[in-house]
Amino acid sequence: MHILIIGAAGMLGRKLSDALVRRGHLRGSDIDKLTLVDVVEPSPAPAWPEGVTFIRTDLTRPGAAAGLLEDAPDVIFHMAAIVSADAEANFEKGYQVNLDGTRALFEAVRLKGSGNGSYRPRLVFTSSIVVFGEPFPETIPDSFFTTPLTSYGTQKAIGELLLADYSRRGFFDGVGIRLPTITVRPGKPNKAASGFFSSILREPLVGQEAVLPVGEDVRHWFASPRSAIQFILRAAEIDTGAMGARRSLTMPGLCATVGEEIEALRRVAGKAAADLIRREPDPIIASIIKGWPQRFDASRAEALGFQAEKSFDEIIRIHIEDELDGAVQS
Amino acid sequence: MHILIIGAAGMLGRKLSDALVRRGHLRGSDIDKLTLVDVVEPSPAPAWPEGVTFIRTDLTRPGAAAGLLEDAPDVIFHMAAIVSADAEANFEKGYQVNLDGTRALFEAVRLKGSGNGSYRPRLVFTSSIVVFGEPFPETIPDSFFTTPLTSYGTQKAIGELLLADYSRRGFFDGVGIRLPTITVRPGKPNKAASGFFSSILREPLVGQEAVLPVGEDVRHWFASPRSAIQFILRAAEIDTGAMGARRSLTMPGLCATVGEEIEALRRVAGKAAADLIRREPDPIIASIIKGWPQRFDASRAEALGFQAEKSFDEIIRIHIEDELDGAVQS
Repeated sequence: MHILIIGAAGMLGRKLSDALVRRGHLRGSDIDKLTLVDVVEPSPAPAWPEGVTFIRTDLTRPGAAAGLLEDAPDVIFHMAAIVSADAEANFEKGYQVNLDGTRALFEAVRLKGSGNGSYRPRLVFTSSIVVFGEPFPETIPDSFFTTPLTSYGTQKAIGELLLADYSRRGFFDGVGIRLPTITVRPGKPNKAASGFFSSILREPLVGQEAVLPVGEDVRHWFASPRSAIQFILRAAEIDTGAMGARRSLTMPGLCATVGEEIEALRRVAGKAAADLIRREPDPIIASIIKGWPQRFDASRAEALGFQAEKSFDEIIRIHIEDELDGAVQS
Repeated sequence: MHILIIGAAGMLGRKLSDALVRRGHLRGSDIDKLTLVDVVEPSPAPAWPEGVTFIRTDLTRPGAAAGLLEDAPDVIFHMAAIVSADAEANFEKGYQVNLDGTRALFEAVRLKGSGNGSYRPRLVFTSSIVVFGEPFPETIPDSFFTTPLTSYGTQKAIGELLLADYSRRGFFDGVGIRLPTITVRPGKPNKAASGFFSSILREPLVGQEAVLPVGEDVRHWFASPRSAIQFILRAAEIDTGAMGARRSLTMPGLCATVGEEIEALRRVAGKAAADLIRREPDPIIASIIKGWPQRFDASRAEALGFQAEKSFDEIIRIHIEDELDGAVQS
């Protein structure tokens, strides 16, 4: 079993690589080769075990995608993308990386198969709930149309359409998964509009102050990084026969308000931690967040065995276990 | 007012060109220039009045799209595409013409505007109800997701997403319209699976036999060529302010069965005409048609003033008026 991860240096790419090394098998076979690809080296460069190779390349370079397929990976995880804010600020770069890069990969798989009819890998594509755009019904059904309000969302929605058509044609066996907002994101605070959802937990858990720019009634759709990795692994293993031509799935998530998030922090880490959250309303962030989805019907994914957390307490405990060696450091 | 029609040699392109010449104005201004573009010359080549130019070019050729925008057309009708069966049989050609050609045009408009901030034409894109794929609810709502089951439908759905993103960004003012199955299509019988919907009316109306390959209970969504031209013209004129970021509209149509179609033929042209329809069941065509949509909720388009026929009697009378000089020739 040979696995290829494109976008391996990102937060989820790193966690996925670790999980595959730890697990050692996928789809019932031992993993004997794991090829990690990104435009930048992971930092710090990990000491990978034997069988793991890192390749620095850019899918949008002519021939790059074909080169990665030379020894016919059985499973391809395509997670490479520039993020939403970058794609919005840099129109051409966004389409080049997120659309042309994806298409270059899909085309390389198709062309490899056309010379060798038996090559038809499982291809997992990470999409996002931002393929949807307001106005929304209270619960967004699985059959809701994709009307993205960002170029990033547009590029992901196009990726989903290509994934379905290439799968229908038999060029690969594709599964697209629309990830909820991943919380608690490890690492430093960033300027993403969604950053506060993580930072109001992450910073207080290490005794630092965090800023809350919106009201406590703001409601959104969450899953932990650990769930995200479980989603991605499961997408590689599910029987796609039941999916028909509809190859993209909205992942389950926790529908919760910021107030519920803070209550959970208080329960898990105490009042002192929750008191480290400073209210500093930011009308710009509030107006961006207002257009975001709040609740999905993910029953199609749930029927296929995908599961997310049921409470923010759980999400916080996972962060403490996976990122803080099991202890609140306040 | 300068108008550019890309795909002008096709059936609808020809009718749209004629309608614009006859009408002489659009969006409240006189048309002083009409540029018709296609990969083939219209045949027979019409004697166009002054101000009308035909250019033979291919959007997928580097620089072709930019060349067409040199004198900044105010309204662009983008109707060029290879048809469904061709796009299904020729994967690369379909993506090249229907996706890359469309993107080349959109990019050329964007780049022209980036040198001249005031250039923001109205761009009308003809899409299709085949952006939807079964299973369907009984009536397909405007908010139903696009899950095409053909590469052509995929390419049209991607065109709609690009149209919305380029419009949101202010690069042009786009309107996408999803056309019903156009009936009665003038011309010769063809091999399209949908061909019989037209031929069982068109042939009997000139005293010729036609073959019906499916049962009379088959239900579908129709509009006349005359309605299609009205849709396209209206799409050039509507106030897009009310559309928000949702730039594509399912056009109204007539929901009717083949049996109702034949009843209308009998009423309008008599029993002798209806008797020219020969039943010759074709299980392959029947199985293709089974996956087609039957009924849409087009209330969003109706609220914007789009209207289709209310009966097949009307559709047949329009064919007799527009294509048969007003008389049944049986």
